[in-house]
Amino acid sequence: VSSPPEITLVNGAAADTLSTTDRGLQYGDGLFETIACSGGRARFLSLHLDRLARSCERLQITADLATIQTEIETLASGADRSIVKMIVTRGPWQARGYSFTGSEVATRIAFRFPWPAEGDTSAGVRVRTAQMRLGENAALAGIKHLSRLEQVLARAELRGGSESELLMFSSSGRLVSGTMSNVFIVRGDRLVTPRLDLCGVAGVMRRVVMREAGSAGIGVEERVVEAREIFEASEVFLTNVRLGAQPVAVLDGRKLNVGPLTRRVQELIAKAADG
Amino acid sequence: VSSPPEITLVNGAAADTLSTTDRGLQYGDGLFETIACSGGRARFLSLHLDRLARSCERLQITADLATIQTEIETLASGADRSIVKMIVTRGPWQARGYSFTGSEVATRIAFRFPWPAEGDTSAGVRVRTAQMRLGENAALAGIKHLSRLEQVLARAELRGGSESELLMFSSSGRLVSGTMSNVFIVRGDRLVTPRLDLCGVAGVMRRVVMREAGSAGIGVEERVVEAREIFEASEVFLTNVRLGAQPVAVLDGRKLNVGPLTRRVQELIAKAADG
Repeated sequence: VSSPPEITLVNGAAADTLSTTDRGLQYGDGLFETIACSGGRARFLSLHLDRLARSCERLQITADLATIQTEIETLASGADRSIVKMIVTRGPWQARGYSFTGSEVATRIAFRFPWPAEGDTSAGVRVRTAQMRLGENAALAGIKHLSRLEQVLARAELRGGSESELLMFSSSGRLVSGTMSNVFIVRGDRLVTPRLDLCGVAGVMRRVVMREAGSAGIGVEERVVEAREIFEASEVFLTNVRLGAQPVAVLDGRKLNVGPLTRRVQELIAKAADG
Repeated sequence: VSSPPEITLVNGAAADTLSTTDRGLQYGDGLFETIACSGGRARFLSLHLDRLARSCERLQITADLATIQTEIETLASGADRSIVKMIVTRGPWQARGYSFTGSEVATRIAFRFPWPAEGDTSAGVRVRTAQMRLGENAALAGIKHLSRLEQVLARAELRGGSESELLMFSSSGRLVSGTMSNVFIVRGDRLVTPRLDLCGVAGVMRRVVMREAGSAGIGVEERVVEAREIFEASEVFLTNVRLGAQPVAVLDGRKLNVGPLTRRVQELIAKAADG
């Protein structure tokens, strides 16, 4: 369980509230990044900023990335370990309605949270396939936008169970991701991760794993993954910036091998985070 | 162009700001209703409340509908003509993350806007088909939730053109709706409107038209509508609570007949709104 934010900044000033006319609230019209910080530093910050920049471009939001970077770094520097969440919305509306003019002034909302207390999951987690499917829309695929109702409702499926995460499939039956993680499967001696051209969030830790595995000579395929493939995989692991690579020990009640490639990826991530 | 809100109430108290930890902002985790008010009365209020109640149930949000009704009625009574917008979110988060406990306390954010100045569109509007497709998700279909990025991005396609609305299709190619309206087509002597089981918002004016047309002996079909059917229709009109039934005079540059069934529906709506 996580704690309330220690610090909240709205456009750089300490504040706990936001204008009710902000398009982030009105229409889910914005983006966010969740950044793991340790030793007073925001880990993989350039990858977060790169995704944010691309996502802003996709949504036609004009944001001041230099100020965002400084704000994240300053928040991170104030604690040994923390989670910094940065929301960027299109800003307050200029007139009621979905239309935007392009001259809106984006809103930054930055939070610093204490690192959550949690059990050690390196031995593996229990996972179930979700009933909730993800809608497919190429225009929104990959980006970490504020419209997250699919994930919110999916998480409710976990209630009362022993699983900590769900695997989600798209409306056309492709494997996509977890509710708050990306997924890799091992086929032979290669890593395979779903292509996120129709839905899903392209996570920063997913990109780290693809880059580091590639550099270490491990084959990585990013492609369409059919539902059945996950049940034929020799190893399955989940990634996000807080948890790194989490091996899946049990999937839909079936035990899985926490195998050598997952362990190797965990080592590569640890090395990359130190660098 | 619409004006800023004359009144904003957050949980019943005058306020222009909302907690930054509200799940409406964080995750698009909430709903809204936009209500046309005239003569100091909220038109079709029971239909709005009915949709809100069903939508809250779908999203597992517990809201105080009696208080919401009173608040809408009070706001409406303070002006001759106005637009009241009521947002209901799941409330402030209890802990960071998509998961909700079910014991959150919903937030109400109510706005009253002056009725927007606008040209007379009863002679028909120009409409284009949108490039942006709507993702399909049965769990979210029909409800007016806060995750509206698809509509926001679609509206940007209208920039620089002479059209006032776009027709949107789903990822699998079905006709769904406008960006801020529902759509009816006339085939023979019957009205046809897309079934909204996979995406789209089931508008209050759509329901009024279906009810009133049915009562007046006009056949109404709610079914899957393939893209080609819209080009074979003898009449096409759009509905929302502010504009009633708006005939489509030009679709993708092709002139359409503003025909007798659309005129008949406009009369039926006017009578129902008076009642």
